[in-house]
This record gives sequence, structure tokens and C-alpha cells, in this order.
Amino acid sequence: MEEKPTRSTVGKFVIEAEEAQAMAKESGVAAVRELLPLLVPAAQRLARPPISNYRVGAVGLGASGRIFLGVNLEFPGLPLHHSVHAEQFLMANANAHGEPGIRCVAVSSVPCGHCRQFLQEIRGAAEIQILVTSDEDPAFRPLASLLPNPFGPPDLLHKDAPLLLEPHDNELGALEATGVAVGGGGSCNGIRGGGLERRLREAAEGAARSSHAPYSGCAAGFAVADGGGRVYSGSYVESAAYNPSLGPAQAAMVACLAAGGGREGGGWGIVAAALVEKETAAVSHEGTARIFLEAVAPGAHLKVYRFRPSAAV
Amino acid sequence: MEEKPTRSTVGKFVIEAEEAQAMAKESGVAAVRELLPLLVPAAQRLARPPISNYRVGAVGLGASGRIFLGVNLEFPGLPLHHSVHAEQFLMANANAHGEPGIRCVAVSSVPCGHCRQFLQEIRGAAEIQILVTSDEDPAFRPLASLLPNPFGPPDLLHKDAPLLLEPHDNELGALEATGVAVGGGGSCNGIRGGGLERRLREAAEGAARSSHAPYSGCAAGFAVADGGGRVYSGSYVESAAYNPSLGPAQAAMVACLAAGGGREGGGWGIVAAALVEKETAAVSHEGTARIFLEAVAPGAHLKVYRFRPSAAV
Ligand SMILES: [Zn+2]
Ligand SMILES: [Zn+2]
Repeated sequence: MEEKPTRSTVGKFVIEAEEAQAMAKESGVAAVRELLPLLVPAAQRLARPPISNYRVGAVGLGASGRIFLGVNLEFPGLPLHHSVHAEQFLMANANAHGEPGIRCVAVSSVPCGHCRQFLQEIRGAAEIQILVTSDEDPAFRPLASLLPNPFGPPDLLHKDAPLLLEPHDNELGALEATGVAVGGGGSCNGIRGGGLERRLREAAEGAARSSHAPYSGCAAGFAVADGGGRVYSGSYVESAAYNPSLGPAQAAMVACLAAGGGREGGGWGIVAAALVEKETAAVSHEGTARIFLEAVAPGAHLKVYRFRPSAAV
Repeated sequence: MEEKPTRSTVGKFVIEAEEAQAMAKESGVAAVRELLPLLVPAAQRLARPPISNYRVGAVGLGASGRIFLGVNLEFPGLPLHHSVHAEQFLMANANAHGEPGIRCVAVSSVPCGHCRQFLQEIRGAAEIQILVTSDEDPAFRPLASLLPNPFGPPDLLHKDAPLLLEPHDNELGALEATGVAVGGGGSCNGIRGGGLERRLREAAEGAARSSHAPYSGCAAGFAVADGGGRVYSGSYVESAAYNPSLGPAQAAMVACLAAGGGREGGGWGIVAAALVEKETAAVSHEGTARIFLEAVAPGAHLKVYRFRPSAAV
């Protein structure tokens, strides 16, 4: 009975508000938020943790009434900081869909400190309601009860600075291509026609423009294309505590999985990628993105573009 | 008056038990642990945060009676996950000195979620006493009050598995050199005689053997040498939550700064390095270590060695 609502949503990482309402009704729960824990097992099945085999699923209710799923991702051959936690996946997924807020999250195991910190990037984080389905007595409790006396954005930013899930208008200059490497030669025009390179660049540029990077000022976006010419992009999301930041390449893999890509045989099927980042001395993702791509999609082609701050817009 | 005990310890990251006792007496505090907050400002001055300019100092009391300092490190040009937090520095510093336990820590600002998670790697973490000097009412309070209901080693490991600061006997096979690159040609024998390459390898190997890597099973150690032929090594320290893990290269920089290296002009002065890691499919630090070294010490020479699990010991 509890599994009933999951059947219609297998493999879906976003559930529209109307469908969520219908599912709640069908499941006999009083409110949509009571549906979230029922969807956690289905989310867990979508996880990709080949190192730990520890499947985590997170399901969040947005202010728009939509439901967003998150799962953990691990990438063999890379240091563990390349991993994406289910709560991060959920927030990156919501962010990519323009969701203005997440107020309730059900998750299969208690959020780690890294995630409790990452969630501080959302305004009113203290009041996000978290339910842990593996608890003896699962109930929605405020994030503040899991991370009291937090370090977070208010310690470093002006109170009006946009936080995660709020509209970002990163002031970026003109875009220049500055590097080409990792397999495939100097161009990916051969893949599904000449439009792919442009589409990758545009997708990564859009992701960079909506990146949440208030601490370093180094906005960045990443886009990947699969063999079918489908393009998925993700925005770099920084944490006030630095290390829990979600890299742009990881965010692109979130988008890929959430949009139904990366399923073939358990691999990711990525053939080309683009990184767009602001040219500064503080942070560059290029080296790490190359390592990531080599491990996740050996031979895939990467093109790097940089915003020159001084150039005319 | 409060600054008095710091004068004799400027630049010192380890204070012997006897000296700590004398300093406590001299400062008029009833117990050594009351000395910890008085040392925090001196620790903050040793921090290296060129990106954030946000200086964090942490001072911990070991079971041996020794005092260990920790500071935050940031590395421009690299993604923010390369940063080392003061609490991580403190624990890596204590670990490198064979300290069996840390029970009290004073820190300049409230620990972030990433650090509250990292500290779970110590047995009895819930009872580590934390004092935040910037609090309105600074007092030692248990870590459990900052990270209630934690995710940690008990969720993944057998209860008898060694935790951080406990003796490690990583069963590693034979060591082979598998790669040479990043500046300087194929050998660093030219630097201060033929012994340096061997000393680097031995230091990194020792660090790998005492590495805390129970989650991936991929023990690793890193060693760096400065222009004076001094060698500093650090052990990879994993976190049950994966992402907060401290990389071996970062741990080596902790050792470098703690031993008085890396001071010349604010740079690190590193000329050569060695990485020793277990050869597995799950985690490799090589790519990330190369990026790190290129940013921190351009032109420095890196040699990589791997333990072959199947080889005779
Ligand atoms: Zn987590
Ligand atoms: Zn921290």
C-alpha cells in the first residue's frame, strides 16, 4: 500500500503540483507533505553509489507544490569529495527547475553535517522541516534541531544578497573560448552536427549566469551532451563553509540523471562537455572538471570558456 | 593580560604538556583547558585564508596533556573543497604527532557542519567539549549539542574498527613507482642529493600506512619537500560522510606549516612531492594531487607510487 504512489513516478525526479495532489489523495494522506516519506524508497532505488552501495533518497516539497527527488551519486576513481549527496541533488534539481523554495524534506537516513551545512544556503534554512524515514519515530522537525547555532550565509553576506533558489543575476562579462582538450580533438562539431558545440556553450553559460557563488565571486556552469545530442547543464552552488560547495560538473550530472539521461548500462553516456567560468585568481574548476570527465566519460571532449571581467558586455 | 601566554608560543603548533602546565600557571587559570581560549587569537594569526580573509584558529587539548593548534588554509586557483578548516588542521596535526585523543577544543568561530561531521571520526565524538570564543557566553559544550543525532562511523563500521587518532595498521602490499610528472623532469635526485626522492617516498609511505581510510579502503599518504630538503608528510583522513574527508596533499601542507615550513614570503616553497596510494578502482588521489601541486607549487616534481594489493608483502 505504501509503495502505491511510487509506481506512477518511477524514474521521475520532478512531480508536478497537480500530480502530487492527485497522488496524495490516492494514497489517503491528508496533505502532500505526508506523501514525501512514501516516495523515499522509490528515490533510493534511483541512487548511484557504486563505492559505498549505501543508497540515500531525499524527497522535497517546493513552494510551488512540486515535488523534487534527490539521490546520492558516487564516482569511482575520484576522491570522495566528488560525491553528491541526496540532499544536494534535491536542491540542485529544484534550483535547475526554478523552484523558489523548499520547505519540507523526507530523507532515508539522517542528513550528515556536510548536508546540514549545504542546506544553510536556503533562506530561512532553520525552519526547513526534515523527516528521517529510518528514525524510530519519523516526524518533520526543523533543520535547526539538526544544526543548532549554525555557521552560514549571514556570517559572510549582506542580508539582501540572493541565496540558493533565489533569482541570481551574476554580472558576467564577455565570453571567450580559452581551452580545448581531453580526447576528441579540437572540436566536437562532428557530433550530431555543428550545433552541439554552440548548444553546450549556451547551456553552460546560462548555468553560470544563475550560479550561486557569492563567496568566491567565481560563477561557473557546466554542460554535458550524450550520444543522442541531448544537453544537460548545472550551476555551481557554493556553501558559506566552502568545502560543501557543489561543483558545476556534479550539478550537470544531477541534471542529466534528473532528465532521464545517463541510464544506458549504468554509465553516463557523456560524449562532450563545456565549462563556463569567470576568469579570476580565486577559483578555477577547469583542472577538476577535466579529472572528473576523464573518470566519468573517458575520451569525452571538453571545451572551456571564460568570462573576462574587464571586457565589454 | 589575555595575550600573555601567546607570546612564547608564536608560530608553534604543538605545545608540550609541561610547557602547557607552566603557561596555565603563569596565566592564572585553574586548569590547562582554560588556557585554550587564550591561545585562539595567536592561532588565528597563523591562518592562511587568501580567498576569504576569514581567519579561524582552533586550539585543542590532547589526552597526553599536549596542546595542538589548527588554522584554516585556502589555496587560490583551486575549487573550494581543497580548503582545510581549522578543526581539520588541528586533528591532522594531533594525528601526525601520535596524539591518542582530543577532548577539548576552543575555536574562534562556531564550527561549520562540515567540521562537526569531520570530528565524528574520533571515538566518543559526542563528548568532545567545544568552546567558541566569539560566543556571547563562551563555555565548553559537548559536540553532541552542535550535531545532535549524527551520521557517523557507527553507521558504517564495526564498533572495533580503528577511528581517527587510534593506531592504524593498514594492510598494504608492495610499493611500485607508477608515474612521474609535473615539471622537473623524471627525477628529483638533483635536489639536495640522491636521498630526497627516497625520503619523500618513505615519508609518504609511512603516512599511507597510518591513513584513516576505512570507507573506501584506499589508504594514501603524501609528502612534500622544500628547497632546504626538509620533508613533510600527511595521511589521508576519510569521513563517514565522504565529502568532508581530508586529502593527503592537504594533510601534508598541515604538517609543513605545523613544522615551521612554508613561511618564505607567504608561499609554500615546495619543490618536490610524492604520493603513495593503494591501487584500487574506488579512489585515486593522483589527478587531484597534480592539480593541487600545480597551483600551490608550480613546477614542483611529483612522483606517484602505488601499493599493489595482490603483490607479496
Ligand atoms: Zn550528506
Ligand atoms: Zn569548518
